[in-house]
Amino acid sequence: IQELEMQLEAIEKGGYDHFMIKEIYEQPQSIRNSMRGRIDLNKGIISLGGIREYEQKIINAQRIIIVACGTSWHAGLVGEYLFEDLARIPVEVEYASEFRYRNPIINENDVVIAISQSGETADTLAAIKLAKEKGATIIGICNVVGSTISRETHAGSYTHAGPEIGVASTKAFTAQVTVLSLMALSIAHKKGTLSESRFRELLVELDNIPNKVAHMLESDKTIKYISDIYKDARNFLYLGRGYNFPVALEGALKLKEISYIHAEGYPAAEMKHGPIALIDEEMPVVVIATKHGNYEKVVSNIEEVKARNGKIIAIVTEGDTAVKAIADHVIEVPETEDALSPLLTSIPLQLLSYHIAVMRGCNVDQPRNLAKSVTVE
Amino acid sequence: IQELEMQLEAIEKGGYDHFMIKEIYEQPQSIRNSMRGRIDLNKGIISLGGIREYEQKIINAQRIIIVACGTSWHAGLVGEYLFEDLARIPVEVEYASEFRYRNPIINENDVVIAISQSGETADTLAAIKLAKEKGATIIGICNVVGSTISRETHAGSYTHAGPEIGVASTKAFTAQVTVLSLMALSIAHKKGTLSESRFRELLVELDNIPNKVAHMLESDKTIKYISDIYKDARNFLYLGRGYNFPVALEGALKLKEISYIHAEGYPAAEMKHGPIALIDEEMPVVVIATKHGNYEKVVSNIEEVKARNGKIIAIVTEGDTAVKAIADHVIEVPETEDALSPLLTSIPLQLLSYHIAVMRGCNVDQPRNLAKSVTVE
Repeated sequence: IQELEMQLEAIEKGGYDHFMIKEIYEQPQSIRNSMRGRIDLNKGIISLGGIREYEQKIINAQRIIIVACGTSWHAGLVGEYLFEDLARIPVEVEYASEFRYRNPIINENDVVIAISQSGETADTLAAIKLAKEKGATIIGICNVVGSTISRETHAGSYTHAGPEIGVASTKAFTAQVTVLSLMALSIAHKKGTLSESRFRELLVELDNIPNKVAHMLESDKTIKYISDIYKDARNFLYLGRGYNFPVALEGALKLKEISYIHAEGYPAAEMKHGPIALIDEEMPVVVIATKHGNYEKVVSNIEEVKARNGKIIAIVTEGDTAVKAIADHVIEVPETEDALSPLLTSIPLQLLSYHIAVMRGCNVDQPRNLAKSVTVE
Repeated sequence: IQELEMQLEAIEKGGYDHFMIKEIYEQPQSIRNSMRGRIDLNKGIISLGGIREYEQKIINAQRIIIVACGTSWHAGLVGEYLFEDLARIPVEVEYASEFRYRNPIINENDVVIAISQSGETADTLAAIKLAKEKGATIIGICNVVGSTISRETHAGSYTHAGPEIGVASTKAFTAQVTVLSLMALSIAHKKGTLSESRFRELLVELDNIPNKVAHMLESDKTIKYISDIYKDARNFLYLGRGYNFPVALEGALKLKEISYIHAEGYPAAEMKHGPIALIDEEMPVVVIATKHGNYEKVVSNIEEVKARNGKIIAIVTEGDTAVKAIADHVIEVPETEDALSPLLTSIPLQLLSYHIAVMRGCNVDQPRNLAKSVTVE
């Protein structure tokens, strides 16, 4: 039986060494699946059947509160930027565990979005029960169909990323960000905060993201090479701004989870208010420095790190020259809209953590101390 | 001249080895100064002259947005808990550097509170200029009288902590939290979200905090002893919940800033969603486990760390027995109201970072790479 199970697992891994790398590589497909049937490029519309009844509620929301934990909380932070930027609705992102215990202020005009891959996260579930009692509208973004959270919400959109086996979430994260992008775009379109032409531009670009992710994956060799150089580092910093600040947090979390290296994410400009004291020649700093997102500011952050002999691994837009000239290593991502860039920039950070963990001999799919779904408080 | 300067500096340090430790020890007095003339216990009122004209604006605010950087941002997070819990006003705390570049949603009914010790922080200054243009009411909380931010705001309250020389902020932080406590209590009282008796209880307790801080400082020997054990650690985690989550962040920042140890703060319940993978016998974990703030939940977080052989340094309420039984070390703080506990729990974390930095031979008052006031972006 043991042997059969091993064989079955090998088949399930489809030729990959681990579920995690398989799931990273599945992302062109899983992101496509998250959008399937929801985008009509010819008509220029987004239709999210699961939330149709509640769309007007969201459009009129005085405030959106996003509750989540871990990786889903990072997706929520991307959602904050999306909804505020595109749909002009104030968003508050809360750790579910903090939210539920602080006697939160919830009004009937508030919309609560709960994000959870498994749909079983205990703290998130408790948070939405509390919000529901207070009369808020609850929207779910879950991956597992029929899960508890998806049943406890008023409405929702599944991420349709397919089963995720690796404990460290990868394709579920990009699927969550995809659904949040669809929601924010759709609400912004209907609310009129985006012009028709701008909406169409973003829609076409979103539809094109899976191809760009596939292209992005071709950098895997470069990333493996960089991983080999830094695999013994004791600490990492991850910096990003705007839409890519949550990606920096998520990149750091991946490294923590599977390689047990203490990595921390920061909004790049906060570095000067403390973390820069950590920088010396032993500190690799991963910086997301794509075009758009305050590019010049991030370049000056990179210069500050280099002046203190830190090592820079930069995620840049294809064709970049300014960062290339000063960074120790660059990983290129295809050009895209700033608002959609997390779907591309998160991929190399997943690969970096994966390769480092494998090189350190860690159990990538089943990291120590972690459970796939946290169903206890 | 050199010698004279040295002598002058020695005099200014008043017998202490460093400005930082002098400023830590000044806190019973500096917190008292922050409250001076603002509390009338007999009449049971708080009067903040600097914001009197704008009090009604704050009471009616649909939302308070707090903008700050670094340590002041952590004080802002405590402010979020205070205003939401006591005055029932939704609060959003923003990194000034992120806020200013994201085309933020600001309405005329919003009140923006800017926190900055120096009153010169470039990103915070830019953020309030932006918010002012959009019609928001801007309240300042600065330490330096006549500073740029204090002049650019509509109104404000100085912290009156006295000059802070150490680059790592200590007494300025507790003064900021004191002023935020005064503001939140005063608004809550006038808004009627706190009963008269509850307001008086909190007022009496706030007035008593300086004495409790003085008492707290008597733990210094214990903290020095603990510092000696962990001075060579490469990493630290700091955990807290509720009002003490921001204190965990601030404690970690202090250690980063002056000892160059990679320390990271987390809301305790988030540990299971990733950071717990880092825990092994080499990872000291500082946990704020005072009574009130979800005590039982924090105790179970401590048990999880111990089950993975992590070392626990716990900040507990005097007389605690449950945590004492399982933690490796405990530091006691006097019993107080949950809402005011950050003023006590932050003190041992300041001392811990100070002693560790001194033992590691770091330049405590002038840590590498850091400036006291960040007047560039």
